[in-house]
Amino acid sequence: MTAFTPKDPDYEARVRASFARQPMMETLSATLEEVAPGTTTIVSTIPPGTLQQQGQTHAGLAFSIGDTAAGYAASSLLPKGFEIVTSEIKIHLLAPGRGDRLVAIGRVIRPGRRLTIVEADVHAESGDTRTLIAKLMGTMVPVPLTES
Amino acid sequence: MTAFTPKDPDYEARVRASFARQPMMETLSATLEEVAPGTTTIVSTIPPGTLQQQGQTHAGLAFSIGDTAAGYAASSLLPKGFEIVTSEIKIHLLAPGRGDRLVAIGRVIRPGRRLTIVEADVHAESGDTRTLIAKLMGTMVPVPLTES
Amino acid sequence: MTAFTPKDPDYEARVRASFARQPMMETLSATLEEVAPGTTTIVSTIPPGTLQQQGQTHAGLAFSIGDTAAGYAASSLLPKGFEIVTSEIKIHLLAPGRGDRLVAIGRVIRPGRRLTIVEADVHAESGDTRTLIAKLMGTMVPVPLTES
Amino acid sequence: MTAFTPKDPDYEARVRASFARQPMMETLSATLEEVAPGTTTIVSTIPPGTLQQQGQTHAGLAFSIGDTAAGYAASSLLPKGFEIVTSEIKIHLLAPGRGDRLVAIGRVIRPGRRLTIVEADVHAESGDTRTLIAKLMGTMVPVPLTES
Repeated sequence: MTAFTPKDPDYEARVRASFARQPMMETLSATLEEVAPGTTTIVSTIPPGTLQQQGQTHAGLAFSIGDTAAGYAASSLLPKGFEIVTSEIKIHLLAPGRGDRLVAIGRVIRPGRRLTIVEADVHAESGDTRTLIAKLMGTMVPVPLTES
Repeated sequence: MTAFTPKDPDYEARVRASFARQPMMETLSATLEEVAPGTTTIVSTIPPGTLQQQGQTHAGLAFSIGDTAAGYAASSLLPKGFEIVTSEIKIHLLAPGRGDRLVAIGRVIRPGRRLTIVEADVHAESGDTRTLIAKLMGTMVPVPLTES
Repeated sequence: MTAFTPKDPDYEARVRASFARQPMMETLSATLEEVAPGTTTIVSTIPPGTLQQQGQTHAGLAFSIGDTAAGYAASSLLPKGFEIVTSEIKIHLLAPGRGDRLVAIGRVIRPGRRLTIVEADVHAESGDTRTLIAKLMGTMVPVPLTES
Repeated sequence: MTAFTPKDPDYEARVRASFARQPMMETLSATLEEVAPGTTTIVSTIPPGTLQQQGQTHAGLAFSIGDTAAGYAASSLLPKGFEIVTSEIKIHLLAPGRGDRLVAIGRVIRPGRRLTIVEADVHAESGDTRTLIAKLMGTMVPVPLTES
């Protein structure tokens, strides 16, 4: 993967402050672990309210943390005063979501002034085992903070 | 749209019973309104815990109810003893999610024994106004209940 | 569908001139039929060189004319001096491509200054019968002519 | 990447024979280079008839060879008597296609009896430089040869 140079030296504080203002992440018991230029990691401890009818994680949980990890990966490369909005994203569900936690790793594929292409992998972790359960690829749009 | 003939006369009861077992739908304050052959409608009253950092609905809310509405649209056409699993789905976010409620309408585009192609539109409603905020298209896979 | 107002009164001549400069369209025996604000129709007579190993049309034929019809649908709404570049597009193949011709109808879902969301339906026509064989949805980006 | 074990010892001959029957690949001056379990490489020398109006490769060229490389990657893992059909695929165009040739590398992400998830990267090569111009991810469906 290409290494990216952030345009805003305070990118990590900016990303963490934005994440902390997302009620949806609290609802999903999701926390922001790693933040580095062009990549972030989000972990959900899979609260009971995120399951579907078969006791597995709802596709919406993998989507929500995958989309958010990919969005903040894009956001980490923006200049100050900009925010990210998801334009489109596709998710493939590869295996049932079960275990102690879901881990979403978002990455920038190609940054850009008008749009940033991103991807995310979502893993289910249970003890020492880790299973890839979803892959996402999508388009993020940088918008000035006043516009969004 | 093509009219579909259900293979299971009890399709509506089956779909409603499955929906009632989804904790994620309760977390999102989502209820299953219409169920007809090849289409379902799900409404969320947008609880505060589904917002993102700008006070709009998180992309994961539109995704979760859109995916679920599309999945049950596919499920309504299955024979008894089968359930639906999402294989992949793409969402385009077209406008900010704000208002009194989000309404997701799922529809079958092409049913099949091995896979069913579906779509969903998600609207934000506020008083008398209705705005299309997201479109989804994806692939659902029928699986025997014992397998899933 | 929403009616769109073109920003360039000469949109049709501009779109037709651009189409005429595409060698790939000639290779696919594709012609530009209708051009209206926010929609275009492209027809391929399915030359033998566009088939796959089973004698059906290659997925790349439906993709190429669907993508091009959607791109010119977006282009028809641009001001003079701009051109469209495809950023991403997803295609669902719904039925085998066979018959006298493939007809792709592209439409704008939501125009925008930074990006335009589009869709396309591709039909196979054989005598009087018409079968929907593919659906596309994607993102087009307007770029100044000097930039592209 | 996971290593895959082919179910058909003659997978390479089977894949190469199928490729040789695709007129579309000849139209695009595309040849099948590497064939290994779960991955194939296809190269196009970019004939003039595959360009668009700005002299770059048409999105349909990257799509066609990317889809075909991904499809044969899936096909390499099938038992004898089966063939692959593309169900859906999404392409992100990341950079203009220019140069001496386009190289598409298809890979299986997750094989399956009912469907196989695949990806492909498409690079433009010019002398010693190689640029990633497109990424694809999609769903392939195995079908018995008599059915397709």
